[in-house]
Amino acid sequence: MAGRPLHLGAFLMESGHHVAAWRSPHVPARAGLDFGLYRQVAQTAERALFDAVFVADSVAVEEGPGAERISRSARFEPLTLLSALAAVTDRIGLIATVTATYNEPYHVARKFASLDHLSGGRAGWNLVTSDNASEAGNFGRDQHVGHADRYARAQEFLEVVQGLWDSWADDAFVNDRDSGLYYRPEGRRVLAHEGPHFKVRGPLNVARSPQGQPVIVQAGASEAGRSLAARSAELVFTAQPTLSAAQAFYADLKDRAEAAGRSRDAIKILPGAYVIVGESRAEAEDKQAALQALIDPVAAVGLVSRMIGNFDLSGYALDEPLPELPLTDSGQRSRQQLLTSLARDGQLTLRQLAMKVAGGRGHLSLVGSATDVADALQAWFEQGAADGFNLMPPTLPGGLDDFARLVVPELQRRGLFRTRYEGRTLREHLGLARPAWRGAVA
Amino acid sequence: MAGRPLHLGAFLMESGHHVAAWRSPHVPARAGLDFGLYRQVAQTAERALFDAVFVADSVAVEEGPGAERISRSARFEPLTLLSALAAVTDRIGLIATVTATYNEPYHVARKFASLDHLSGGRAGWNLVTSDNASEAGNFGRDQHVGHADRYARAQEFLEVVQGLWDSWADDAFVNDRDSGLYYRPEGRRVLAHEGPHFKVRGPLNVARSPQGQPVIVQAGASEAGRSLAARSAELVFTAQPTLSAAQAFYADLKDRAEAAGRSRDAIKILPGAYVIVGESRAEAEDKQAALQALIDPVAAVGLVSRMIGNFDLSGYALDEPLPELPLTDSGQRSRQQLLTSLARDGQLTLRQLAMKVAGGRGHLSLVGSATDVADALQAWFEQGAADGFNLMPPTLPGGLDDFARLVVPELQRRGLFRTRYEGRTLREHLGLARPAWRGAVA
Repeated sequence: MAGRPLHLGAFLMESGHHVAAWRSPHVPARAGLDFGLYRQVAQTAERALFDAVFVADSVAVEEGPGAERISRSARFEPLTLLSALAAVTDRIGLIATVTATYNEPYHVARKFASLDHLSGGRAGWNLVTSDNASEAGNFGRDQHVGHADRYARAQEFLEVVQGLWDSWADDAFVNDRDSGLYYRPEGRRVLAHEGPHFKVRGPLNVARSPQGQPVIVQAGASEAGRSLAARSAELVFTAQPTLSAAQAFYADLKDRAEAAGRSRDAIKILPGAYVIVGESRAEAEDKQAALQALIDPVAAVGLVSRMIGNFDLSGYALDEPLPELPLTDSGQRSRQQLLTSLARDGQLTLRQLAMKVAGGRGHLSLVGSATDVADALQAWFEQGAADGFNLMPPTLPGGLDDFARLVVPELQRRGLFRTRYEGRTLREHLGLARPAWRGAVA
Repeated sequence: MAGRPLHLGAFLMESGHHVAAWRSPHVPARAGLDFGLYRQVAQTAERALFDAVFVADSVAVEEGPGAERISRSARFEPLTLLSALAAVTDRIGLIATVTATYNEPYHVARKFASLDHLSGGRAGWNLVTSDNASEAGNFGRDQHVGHADRYARAQEFLEVVQGLWDSWADDAFVNDRDSGLYYRPEGRRVLAHEGPHFKVRGPLNVARSPQGQPVIVQAGASEAGRSLAARSAELVFTAQPTLSAAQAFYADLKDRAEAAGRSRDAIKILPGAYVIVGESRAEAEDKQAALQALIDPVAAVGLVSRMIGNFDLSGYALDEPLPELPLTDSGQRSRQQLLTSLARDGQLTLRQLAMKVAGGRGHLSLVGSATDVADALQAWFEQGAADGFNLMPPTLPGGLDDFARLVVPELQRRGLFRTRYEGRTLREHLGLARPAWRGAVA
């Protein structure tokens, strides 16, 4: 690749990103627990030279009206899934979401370090905070943790995890059969962290991993989320519906990273892209229409309810404009703002809003030919809105197959996307430096 | 298999169970993080028709004198490792150790359910409690949790996990494309557990798994450990140095299970067996001598120190009898008792004790021809001491290769061991019933 490289993530969600994907006859039944499907899809993404596959997460079932009409309540736990995928892929990055709200840093540091070793340096951690009462109820709490608190905890959690990943020098484990020394004691670092939220001694019982540190991924778009990302994230996933919104986000986050003393290149920004592509624009539009026709209004309104912070909309009239809603502390705060402005700006009824977000959930949504899709992606990529995209296939495996077969070659023809993997690790794919060991602690 | 079936686990420990295994030129360097080695070894165990591979665990590095001279401080985290192995094996069971002391039941329930789905019904959970200050320090505590407390917590932890595994009826996820119903609401069970240690609502966001419930494994031999095992364990690993001790343990645990209202067959007891086998007895003895010659006294005394509860023996004279030691609350209490009686009964010096436990750590230890080994295993199996064995290969991959090549065929010739897998799941291999769903909660 001569020019600036474009990066692609494959955001894998059960049967696909469209809320009605599971009703499509082309999607396997009970896709969320079908390892054969995930293996097939990960191998497709690898053949298409994606930087990584990405799996979202929550530590609760979906609740509320219509929960029994969507395919989100039975799925693999991300780290076990990606560990299994590590064994059946060679090059593609493996990014798992794990919440910092209801976990212990030692466990999280260890599992990602283990995955990084298992995969030969392909692990990334999408750090999220838990934002709803359903999750809280599974971890001994009546209420979820407030927004500010959980970001303060997350920042310290991350520092502890990154400290534990530096428990050992890269060459600490000398395995010297003759002298009988398995590791050099001076290559061992005892973290001895004590902070407001955590007290963790270390060291980790995993050697420093192939990437030195697994890649840090973040997706929070609120003020606290951006602040955390600017300081610590190396890859950012974001939901941006329009070029101008994406440009503003991109510039803001790169500015913040620079203000935090980092290079603008040290943080890669990948907006989500919901893409339906066909041999022709008409074919793509037919595919989208076929999926839209499968939408169950109860399921779609339930989706909107959850996206705006578990505010139950099931009693509202479907064919009237979305009413003003209270901004709550729960839910995905920035997604809530995005949806309410979508509805207000477009003067959408609740049904129209639900139909609109049933696929891309407020992300960039493209329906068209390979040329149409590549044009839009190229524009975002070249006009300061993106370093690449986190692809959200509408259905699996078909939606990804289509993109790999039609759009990837078009991006390659335009010199935007790699034609072979040049590196071995996720850091190498993303052009991120390998962090040096921080040395022994006195 | 006509008669009562003998069960075999392959207890995989980094470079092997002998404390000096890593110094052998036949063991790969840094074996604890060598996925290629684990894949090879798991596939060998599967070809040899073992019921399961088993991985121990601790959530801390080894500490104290000689820690830098053993190979235990850099290794995979068990659930990530076994998930990866699930993808490269078809039939063999996958048993991971996870502590109930520093974890959340929702996470543990979810990861094992996920592994059970990934592997098509091959997951087992070895429930342990954390017993040392090194582990406590990684989870915000200055002191480890006391013995009684951690078993009370473990019992409740297990009840919550098993409750969460019954979050969904086996046929809850109907995936009915026509009606738009993804799951039947009446197949959903909200646990709503509230107890002294945990408050967990549920449901789990994983469908009921192929085995209904992953197999529960336990290895505690103390009073509290036996009590937990009698009520809940389906498979028990135990360290027994002699036939008579093993018979007493076996009878006691089966009696306790029966007293708890269970069938004696519902709990399978597998003592550990450290086996060095050769084409002849002399060849086996040479192999053992070669490993013993690699022992570093500092490393071996450190091993004993840790086994008796992190009591530092490095200041004691190597060639004098082991002194009386205080029984502490920390450490593996029953292992401590086993070692002190070994030393007292055999009038062993510290060095002799260290050399003696450097391989089998107090388990049944066999060095001999295939006939010798099979004779001993058969005697234990037929004389009320064992339902099978948890094999502890001295080195990897060689120690397991030898057993698979020499001992397994001998056990098969005697009609003691399977000649093909008759089932698909770990429960089926072990002859354990698949638990029925407990039904919806009102």
